[in-house]
Amino acid sequence: MQANAPDPASFRAQFPVFEHTSYLNAGTEGPVPRRAADAVHRQIDLEVAQGRCGRGYSERVMELAGRLRTGYAGLLGCEPAEVALTGSTTDGVNTVIAGLELHPGDEILTTDEEHPGLLAPLAHAKRRHGINVRIVPFAEIAESVSSATRLIACSHVSWVSGRVIDAGALAGCGAPVLLDAAQALGAIAVDVRALGCDFYAASGQKWLCGPEGSGCLYVRQDRLDELLVPWPGYGSLADPSQPLEMVPAAGAARFDHGFPAGLRSSSALASLEVLGEPGWDWVHERASSLAASLADGLSERGLEVGPRGRSTLVSWKASEPQIEVQRLAEAGFVVRSIPAFGFVRASVGAWSAEAELQALVAAAGPG
Amino acid sequence: MQANAPDPASFRAQFPVFEHTSYLNAGTEGPVPRRAADAVHRQIDLEVAQGRCGRGYSERVMELAGRLRTGYAGLLGCEPAEVALTGSTTDGVNTVIAGLELHPGDEILTTDEEHPGLLAPLAHAKRRHGINVRIVPFAEIAESVSSATRLIACSHVSWVSGRVIDAGALAGCGAPVLLDAAQALGAIAVDVRALGCDFYAASGQKWLCGPEGSGCLYVRQDRLDELLVPWPGYGSLADPSQPLEMVPAAGAARFDHGFPAGLRSSSALASLEVLGEPGWDWVHERASSLAASLADGLSERGLEVGPRGRSTLVSWKASEPQIEVQRLAEAGFVVRSIPAFGFVRASVGAWSAEAELQALVAAAGPG
Repeated sequence: MQANAPDPASFRAQFPVFEHTSYLNAGTEGPVPRRAADAVHRQIDLEVAQGRCGRGYSERVMELAGRLRTGYAGLLGCEPAEVALTGSTTDGVNTVIAGLELHPGDEILTTDEEHPGLLAPLAHAKRRHGINVRIVPFAEIAESVSSATRLIACSHVSWVSGRVIDAGALAGCGAPVLLDAAQALGAIAVDVRALGCDFYAASGQKWLCGPEGSGCLYVRQDRLDELLVPWPGYGSLADPSQPLEMVPAAGAARFDHGFPAGLRSSSALASLEVLGEPGWDWVHERASSLAASLADGLSERGLEVGPRGRSTLVSWKASEPQIEVQRLAEAGFVVRSIPAFGFVRASVGAWSAEAELQALVAAAGPG
Repeated sequence: MQANAPDPASFRAQFPVFEHTSYLNAGTEGPVPRRAADAVHRQIDLEVAQGRCGRGYSERVMELAGRLRTGYAGLLGCEPAEVALTGSTTDGVNTVIAGLELHPGDEILTTDEEHPGLLAPLAHAKRRHGINVRIVPFAEIAESVSSATRLIACSHVSWVSGRVIDAGALAGCGAPVLLDAAQALGAIAVDVRALGCDFYAASGQKWLCGPEGSGCLYVRQDRLDELLVPWPGYGSLADPSQPLEMVPAAGAARFDHGFPAGLRSSSALASLEVLGEPGWDWVHERASSLAASLADGLSERGLEVGPRGRSTLVSWKASEPQIEVQRLAEAGFVVRSIPAFGFVRASVGAWSAEAELQALVAAAGPG
C-alpha cells in the first residue's frame, strides 16, 4: 500500500451507522455520511430563514442541480447533457419504456433476474401497447435477441446474484439497450460509452449514498430525440410559455423528473463528494475485492454462494432466508433476503471492514 | 373576535421568512414554518445515526407516509384510500392523462388560463395518442363540453387571475373532471365530494408549505380501476413478487409516485400541523379576506385588478410586469409576474399581515 493511499478506517468513520451496526445493505439504501446530513441542515436552515423564492434562491437551486448532473455524468463517463435527474432507477426505466413509441407485436427482451422496478414498467407497456415481454435466462440474453426485439432491458448487475451482464455482447445485437444500474452505479466502475448501451438508469440512494428519491438516467446523445417526453412538466419545455408546442428542453434535462429540489441536490452532492475523495477507483476496487473475499469465505465455510461477477453483492443459499436474515440481525449484521431465489444477500462497500466480513462468515449458515 | 380566536401575529411568527421580507409568493412556493425545519433536522439525524434500514426504519417511513396520506385526505374531504402521494401537481395530472386509455379523436377540454404543468401532459397525449386538445375561455368551459369530450381538465383556481372554476356546472356535464388544484388545496376550503370531481391534483410545496417534490392526487373510489397505473414501480403492486401480473396495490396508493421518502413526509406533516393548529377554516377565511382587501385596495388606487374569485391570488395589470416585480422586490415585496397576461400577481396567505398589504397597495403601480 502506498504511503498516501486512502485509509479505510477514516473513510468508514464518515458513516455514523457503522458505530453500532455491521450495515451490509447498501443494495437497498446506502449508509448516509455525516457530511450529507450537514448539507441537509444547512439547506433547510437557508430555506426557512431566507425563503424559497427570489432570483437568488432559484439560481442556487438550479446551480445545485447542474452540479449534481455534472457529478453523475462524471461517474457515468458521459456529457452532463446526456443525464436526467430522476427520483429512482424506476423513474429512468419508466421514462425509456414510456418514451419509446411502442406498437403491438414489438418485443422487449429481459431476463429472469430482474427487479419489480424494471418488470412493472414492462408489464404496463404490455397492457397499454400490446407488446410482448420475453424473459430469458440472465446469461443467455445476448443470444436471444430476435428481429422483433425493439428493446433489450436488463440489469447491469443482477440484484439477485450479483452477476454482471455481458454488455459488450448486448451492444452488438442490433437493438437499443437499457441497463438497470441500481446495483452498478457507485458500486463498480462504469463507463457508458465502453458499455455501449443506449440508456442507463440508476439509483441515487443506494451505492451513491444519496437521499431517498434521487437517481439519474443516461440517454445517449443520438437517442435523445427518439424518445418522447412521457411525463412532461414545466422543466421539460424549451419554452414554457408555449407548452402546447411541446418543443423539448435541450439535452436529457427534458427528462428530469420534477423540480430539482434543493434539499435533494445538496444532500446527494455531499455524498458524492465523500465517496469521490479517496478516488472512485479505490472505492470500486476495495468494494469488489472485499465482496470477493466474503464470497470465498462463505464458500470455504461450506455455504452455497450464488453465481456472481465482479460486483459488490454476495448472495448465498439458505433454507429459510427470512429467518436467517432475522438471526443475523440479532447478531448485529444488516443483510436482506431474496426469498424467491432462496438467497440471503450482503451488500459490501468500500466502507465495509475486513473484520466485520470475517465475523459475518463465522456467523452465517448452519451453526 | 372571540377571546380564544387564533392570533394572526403568533401564526405569522412561525414562518421566519417574514422577519425580513413581505413574502407574497406562496403560489410558487410557500413559506416554510420553523417546525418543518425542526422535523427535517430530526429525520436526517435519525437516518445518519440509525441507518436507513431494518424493520424499524421502514415501518417508520411507511407510518409517516400513512399519516401524510391521512392528512391530505382530511383536507380534501375524502378517504385516505383515495389519495396518492405524488411529487407535484404535474405528477398527478400526468398520472390521470397517461392512466386513461385514450384513443385518436378523443377530446380533452381545457381553458385558456392553464399552467404548463397541465398543458404539457395534454400536448404529450395529443402527440402520443392522437387526441384533440380544445381550449376554451375559462368561464365558458362547462357550456363547451361535447359528446367527444373524454375528459375535462382545468384549474380549480386559475394561476393567472385567481378566478375559481364553476365545479358544480362541470360535474353535471357527463365527462370525468380533473381539477388542477395547485392554487386551491391549502388556499381555499376544498371538499372533493361537494365539488363533484373525479380527479384532483395538488401541490405540497405551495399553499401547504411542504417540501419541494411533494403533492397529492385524489382519485375517486369508483374511478380507481378505470385508470391504468402508468408509472408503476415496486409500491404500485399488490404483490411485488409477481410484477408481471401487474395486479395493482389497494387504493390510490398504487399511484404513489416513487418511494415515500421519510424526509419529505416528516417535513410535509410538520407544515400541515402548523397550518391546521389555528383551524383550517380560520386559515382559509383569513387568507381569502385579506386577498379581497388587497384587491379592493389596488382597485381604489386605480390599478386594473384581473377578474377574480374567492381565492388567495390577486393579479393586476402592469405595462411591464417583470420590471414592476423587480421594483417591488427592491421595496421588500416578493410577488411574481405572469408576463403572457400582463399581470403582476400577489399570493396572500393567512400568514400575511394587514399592514404589509396596505404597504403593497401604496407601493404598487404608477407613483
